[in-house]
Amino acid sequence: MVDYPRHIPTKHERIEPLLQHHDADAYVHIGNCFDEVLSYLTRFNGPDRDYAFVYADKKAVLCAPDRFGDQAEREFPGDEVDMTGASERLPATVRSQMFLESHGVRDRLLLPATTKHQTVQAFREDGYDIVLTDSIKDIRRVKTGQERKLLKTIEFATQRGMARAETILATATIEGNELRWQGKPLTTEILRREVNSVLAKNGLDAAGNTVIGAGQSCADLHYNGIDRIEPNETVLLDLSPEGPHGYYGDLTRTFVVGRAGEWERTAYQAVSDALAGAFDVFEDGAGQPASNVQDRVADELAAYGFETGDVDIGMYHGAGHGVGSSLHELPFLSSDEQLEAGNVVTIEPGVYDPARGGVRLEDLIEITEDGYENYVRYPKEIVPKEQMI
Amino acid sequence: MVDYPRHIPTKHERIEPLLQHHDADAYVHIGNCFDEVLSYLTRFNGPDRDYAFVYADKKAVLCAPDRFGDQAEREFPGDEVDMTGASERLPATVRSQMFLESHGVRDRLLLPATTKHQTVQAFREDGYDIVLTDSIKDIRRVKTGQERKLLKTIEFATQRGMARAETILATATIEGNELRWQGKPLTTEILRREVNSVLAKNGLDAAGNTVIGAGQSCADLHYNGIDRIEPNETVLLDLSPEGPHGYYGDLTRTFVVGRAGEWERTAYQAVSDALAGAFDVFEDGAGQPASNVQDRVADELAAYGFETGDVDIGMYHGAGHGVGSSLHELPFLSSDEQLEAGNVVTIEPGVYDPARGGVRLEDLIEITEDGYENYVRYPKEIVPKEQMI
Repeated sequence: MVDYPRHIPTKHERIEPLLQHHDADAYVHIGNCFDEVLSYLTRFNGPDRDYAFVYADKKAVLCAPDRFGDQAEREFPGDEVDMTGASERLPATVRSQMFLESHGVRDRLLLPATTKHQTVQAFREDGYDIVLTDSIKDIRRVKTGQERKLLKTIEFATQRGMARAETILATATIEGNELRWQGKPLTTEILRREVNSVLAKNGLDAAGNTVIGAGQSCADLHYNGIDRIEPNETVLLDLSPEGPHGYYGDLTRTFVVGRAGEWERTAYQAVSDALAGAFDVFEDGAGQPASNVQDRVADELAAYGFETGDVDIGMYHGAGHGVGSSLHELPFLSSDEQLEAGNVVTIEPGVYDPARGGVRLEDLIEITEDGYENYVRYPKEIVPKEQMI
Repeated sequence: MVDYPRHIPTKHERIEPLLQHHDADAYVHIGNCFDEVLSYLTRFNGPDRDYAFVYADKKAVLCAPDRFGDQAEREFPGDEVDMTGASERLPATVRSQMFLESHGVRDRLLLPATTKHQTVQAFREDGYDIVLTDSIKDIRRVKTGQERKLLKTIEFATQRGMARAETILATATIEGNELRWQGKPLTTEILRREVNSVLAKNGLDAAGNTVIGAGQSCADLHYNGIDRIEPNETVLLDLSPEGPHGYYGDLTRTFVVGRAGEWERTAYQAVSDALAGAFDVFEDGAGQPASNVQDRVADELAAYGFETGDVDIGMYHGAGHGVGSSLHELPFLSSDEQLEAGNVVTIEPGVYDPARGGVRLEDLIEITEDGYENYVRYPKEIVPKEQMI
């Protein structure tokens, strides 16, 4: 059984420079359980109605909903759970205002750029000067030791889901133009449910992110439909489950059951080389622009005649992205931001031809001062084998 | 294998009266995959960045993100997928404005009350008059035939998850003060993973909603922590997985392994009677206030000395709520809204004592003109038995 830490601290002090930069007195974040930034700030698995997080006077406070006080005390790694006005079911905005007033904060508030219009209005009507910022995303860019360990554990468990899929592909039988498993034609949906079941046993939630393409649907980057899987075509599996504390895994492998044709073999080799090239670049570690990786991937693919960018055949997505309490977060490898030690990013070269299929391989790595650590030990072979789970 | 329909239509024409009521020319909804109302409107399993839904001239349009065009065509049950400006990565707000302008809509827009401040600003700067509304929630209140069938199928699959949990409880062994299963102390986390694994095999996503309490933690309405399960205490399981097209199941049962004490037996009987009383009320079908149910539940519990409302011991939550593409939606049984044929609601009486435990039983039913249909066939017994899955 894979074990996860019960608590993951949040570095709330990273909000302090944002406040100073905007000359603001407090950061206020109103949202519900579907807000992943709020989930990072609170570690609170709250309800689908609004609650409030406040950072002021170097203190992090959660105004938790009625009947969620005990849970908030258990989960929130900040300084205080405030239940004032909870049992009266006062709106989260009003409750955060009460907290701010009782602490003498009356001037300028920093809110996330995603804040609802009605929330901004309510604060303005109460006399606050409001500044909206996108930079709250920045504070998650460099992961703490606890976050890195959690991400590594989630990625480990994600590999067990992949092993289930690969084992099924390895043991499926070819009958004419059909791939059969347990007496039935094998479909992307059967494979998806088997993978998700193993992810669940390992404490992960598929979160609707188990992308499985077969043949042409591999070229559809987020294919979640139902296809029969045929021999000799690419089967692309991109698993991005959500683990404890809302952190994600992200892992992609591609297989061909039967006989890979020339296009499939060339594509697989091109993507393998692109991945090896990316690791070459990562060897230099932090302090280089992320786009070094994207450029190297493009070069390697070009050697096989595959184009990159806004193309119909080739690689039409970024080479990778940060992963944390959002599946896609900073830094993005297609940007020219500097890589920093403690970034955790995917590297996911791929090439696609909507008429034939697609190949993508993806690992999850941590950037270190002078290199990188790959969180993934999973083999990369086009021919599926039975994998121990 | 449980099969689900590949497509669920959305009654976009229900937006028309809202437009007329507010004298608006179009309804515009900007959001991402975490917005459950947008998910209802589009059936589009989109990315974690913004896209736009527009309803104007009696046409429903999805401005889908770059590289999601094929998926949008596959999933969106409206009239048109618009990709103008997608490959240039123009913001969803700008793309919806382009669509509106090309269709001559220049005056008043209706937006959901949850709209971001920056979105409202962008439309206002472009000269639109903006009205925010909460009523978009109302159009989901009465389910279509396809939605009811889907909800029934999801609830059926949810019962398989419960069967797994009950079977484990029935086969666990009591050793002293410990409950053991497969050679280890049984915990809420082991039980949760086993349940979630079965849900996944049946096409459902646990979605972080597998609440399992043991003893005192049953009184915590949304307990998601890790407890050892002991003999003779209540074990409360509330499963609310997310199924295909984003619709939810919702099912609660409570068991005691070993010997239920007097409090547990009394609580179980009180909750059973409350449920039976609620079904009496539902027998009258549509056209009565939802609060009839809440009142009857309170009366039945009172007969056993349990209070209802803002209390520390007794029932401190509503008797039920609508379920659809949100886990909690209209109608709420604690309100005085009229029940309508086609409402799908949970009925979930419960009583709790934070010093002892808690008992809750929950079924999912459909309101009909002259009665109700219970989607749940799962037994209600305090002693767990092995259940066929």
